[in-house]
Amino acid sequence: MTGTRRQKFWDWGYEDTVLSADEEQRLLGNYASRFGVDNFDRMPVPKADDIELSACRLRIPAALERICTTDHLERLCHTYGKSFMDTLRAFSHDFANAPDVIAYPETEADVVAVLDWAGDAKAAVIPFGGGSSVVGGTEPAVDGSFEGTISLDLARLDHVLEIDHTSRTASIQAGIFGPALEAALKPEGLTLRHFPQSFEFSTLGGWIATRSGGHFATLYTHIDDFVENLRVVTPAGIVESRRLPGSGAGPSPDRLFMGSEGALGVITEASVRLQNRPKFRASIAVSFDDFYQAADAVRVISQAGLYPSNLRLLDPVEARINGAGDGDHAIVVLAFESADHDVETWLDRGLEICAEFGGTFERDTAGAAGAQRSGAAGAWREAFIRMPYYREVLVPAGVINATFETAITWDRFRDFHHRCKTATEDAIKRATGKSGVVTCRFTHVYPDGPAPYFTWHAVGRHGALPQQWDEIKGAASNAIIDAGGTITHHHAVGRDHMPWYVKQRPKLFGDVLAAAKSSLDPSGVLNPGVLVL
Amino acid sequence: MTGTRRQKFWDWGYEDTVLSADEEQRLLGNYASRFGVDNFDRMPVPKADDIELSACRLRIPAALERICTTDHLERLCHTYGKSFMDTLRAFSHDFANAPDVIAYPETEADVVAVLDWAGDAKAAVIPFGGGSSVVGGTEPAVDGSFEGTISLDLARLDHVLEIDHTSRTASIQAGIFGPALEAALKPEGLTLRHFPQSFEFSTLGGWIATRSGGHFATLYTHIDDFVENLRVVTPAGIVESRRLPGSGAGPSPDRLFMGSEGALGVITEASVRLQNRPKFRASIAVSFDDFYQAADAVRVISQAGLYPSNLRLLDPVEARINGAGDGDHAIVVLAFESADHDVETWLDRGLEICAEFGGTFERDTAGAAGAQRSGAAGAWREAFIRMPYYREVLVPAGVINATFETAITWDRFRDFHHRCKTATEDAIKRATGKSGVVTCRFTHVYPDGPAPYFTWHAVGRHGALPQQWDEIKGAASNAIIDAGGTITHHHAVGRDHMPWYVKQRPKLFGDVLAAAKSSLDPSGVLNPGVLVL
Repeated sequence: MTGTRRQKFWDWGYEDTVLSADEEQRLLGNYASRFGVDNFDRMPVPKADDIELSACRLRIPAALERICTTDHLERLCHTYGKSFMDTLRAFSHDFANAPDVIAYPETEADVVAVLDWAGDAKAAVIPFGGGSSVVGGTEPAVDGSFEGTISLDLARLDHVLEIDHTSRTASIQAGIFGPALEAALKPEGLTLRHFPQSFEFSTLGGWIATRSGGHFATLYTHIDDFVENLRVVTPAGIVESRRLPGSGAGPSPDRLFMGSEGALGVITEASVRLQNRPKFRASIAVSFDDFYQAADAVRVISQAGLYPSNLRLLDPVEARINGAGDGDHAIVVLAFESADHDVETWLDRGLEICAEFGGTFERDTAGAAGAQRSGAAGAWREAFIRMPYYREVLVPAGVINATFETAITWDRFRDFHHRCKTATEDAIKRATGKSGVVTCRFTHVYPDGPAPYFTWHAVGRHGALPQQWDEIKGAASNAIIDAGGTITHHHAVGRDHMPWYVKQRPKLFGDVLAAAKSSLDPSGVLNPGVLVL
Repeated sequence: MTGTRRQKFWDWGYEDTVLSADEEQRLLGNYASRFGVDNFDRMPVPKADDIELSACRLRIPAALERICTTDHLERLCHTYGKSFMDTLRAFSHDFANAPDVIAYPETEADVVAVLDWAGDAKAAVIPFGGGSSVVGGTEPAVDGSFEGTISLDLARLDHVLEIDHTSRTASIQAGIFGPALEAALKPEGLTLRHFPQSFEFSTLGGWIATRSGGHFATLYTHIDDFVENLRVVTPAGIVESRRLPGSGAGPSPDRLFMGSEGALGVITEASVRLQNRPKFRASIAVSFDDFYQAADAVRVISQAGLYPSNLRLLDPVEARINGAGDGDHAIVVLAFESADHDVETWLDRGLEICAEFGGTFERDTAGAAGAQRSGAAGAWREAFIRMPYYREVLVPAGVINATFETAITWDRFRDFHHRCKTATEDAIKRATGKSGVVTCRFTHVYPDGPAPYFTWHAVGRHGALPQQWDEIKGAASNAIIDAGGTITHHHAVGRDHMPWYVKQRPKLFGDVLAAAKSSLDPSGVLNPGVLVL
């Protein structure tokens, strides 16, 4: 719930924002022709009144009535994130895991009070930012040892508390949504420039708790490096780190809470490092005959110390599907931006490297104002923003359009890419009986490796969709872990990735996290089932 | 002990490397005239044979005799780091905290065996890299609950295991010293480019365990960002993280061990991110009438996205003392380097910013080959390398030449700098009865603040030196903490900074570290007294 417009409880976006009939038809038409389907059997959009919820199991203390609700629609809206299975279960009227209560703290003291209540009542507390998790991070799916569940929605802790122009930082409450945060900074000439795909419906605290990935394809990829300090409410008390530009005093306290996914504490405030708003921009799409050759160009650029703001590689099919290519060529979107200096020198060198690897481009369109909003780059950008809306059309039609993302070192990239792609293709064939489509792009790039992001498309069968999903998602996740990658580069672990996360992380580090949780959350009320088993 | 040359047990460097008689005379002459001292009463250089050590309290298991020693000189060499108080105590023949045994593991299994033995024998284990700690990090000063102490010297785990040219990384054993590491990478055209002042006598594992600060003044300041993965032996078992260019799967395991100072585990291997050796360099010293105006220029450059390799500000007195200025002007050393592209465009923009803040420079010397080794920048570089050798002349003469370093956000910098400087000056006057000299430089710079590094000079009195030191060091440390800084930016916490570190860190984070230690080191044998109380 942000402002007066209501978010859909069954999928992405506001209730009043849907694909047009034309878009729907085009979208389904594409799948129909690609998969040889005559027409799709579509489940109807669920209505809140048709969904039954079990009675609230918790008694709200009088002092907390002011900030708590058991409203039917609120409970629906706080059940699911935005994954394929979330949407499918919403369309299936399955809201068995709806929270009993939603709490909207208005102050930090409210957060403390809710945690105290939860401890007394043996209720699980699920911190909730924008609810855009695609990994089950905010679903109140907890084991039977709890007497009930509370979704702790930080949306009212949404103030920019202080802007420090000299240090170019701001202290901001964690519940602020992306657009409100940027709107508050814009008149000051400042920007956080952290634009995950979920930007419109995710919060600063959510970004930090999940180590989200943002706008910059290199250098400042995760939110992590933008965080100057944190204030975190835990059942054991409040943790506040110092505002420091850097420190070597022991292991970083902030890094413990970055990626802690609500299991160690509730992030209530952060100071974040800002940028001046860019004045200089140069952007261009470079075409390559071969995906791996394009990847080599990206690698060399990533190791050249040029730090482009965008360095995204789309494989030929991904480029075509998103209107950014002809299907035969891989596309690299290369962009630089700066508030301080013209970036043509940087772009020139980036393009030289592309050319060395056989990349072709039309130089005259580069650097033009607004170039990043036109051509292949512009097509990609538009598709990127619309993408989350596809699901509510596709899922009820039995079409699976899902993604998984990871990271791997350059030396293993080719083999890794091949294994992940093949494993997913094979699983789609096995699970659905039909060939699917698996595409890949790079969302972020490091000197020592890329963060490949895979999208897969399959036509499933109503009734069998959960099993089909599990088989394909499981095969892809197994391939990632077996081939040495990370189960997530920026989508987080949540409940969905736990089996693979447990394989990935050093066992003793799991023990350390459990020890940290025992110390900070001795009753174990915070987001149980996430990160700590 | 590296190679056949022996390090001094009483101070910095190899036994055969000392200041020349001329250098000594000039150095002491400077202090004599500055402080109005006729001549200095000098303690003689200690001789190993004159120092008595208490008998070894531990019985080395037969299986470990191969890698363990109780040699007199080895015990002396593993008692102290390189702080003022270390040197003073060495010159005073005070080796009460000498380790009972020094273990030189040759394999990871040896490390495991030593930890097992220590657990059984109730002995404390102090991981030892190069022994260059200036904060008591490697001194076997443990409480009476231990039956003895083992200095675990990693020097024989010094191999470069694998170089990955594609990802530009290398897997390296933790005990390798800086020069050997760079020598192994040089023929491959690669470099880690992590050059702390201790470079010659410190190790990769030591850098990571202490979050050391290196060559780059911006962007890649600490070793942290160069670490791709870690392998760590703990009493509970081995922790190995995946080689990943980036990940968002929960809190970073590596970040827990970065800065863990041997209290959570023994780092035995790391994969580190390398650079191609730079081909293009441009360096220039810029002169400013005013220190704070120079700091403003540095701030704007640090926020411009130019990422200079050097951006070090010296205050007028610091510049003069190091032969890099006339004493009336602050100096900014601005340098860029790249293996990929000419950096003149970057330097031009950096100098434009300097000029906007009143900086003056001779452009024609900029960018010349070897410019960073000539002029003010060159003088500074030479002084930087010689500096550690001054102590063994000054300390026995009763002269205190010491440093402390910190970080602070830009908005608080002026007040912070003033408070730290004044508190130290006042304490010197109080403790010694004479005015001292306190100077400041920036070692590293971030968009949201600098890392100021203070040097102070005082003439003390034999017999009273420990108390004088405590009073001055305590006042400076109190000022840092009270004014919002960090007790260390890259020197680490060790035993010396613990009282202020405990004030600085969030209390609950201290509890988490204690919980982590209980989990990884249940008998508490690892570097007791450091980080966890």
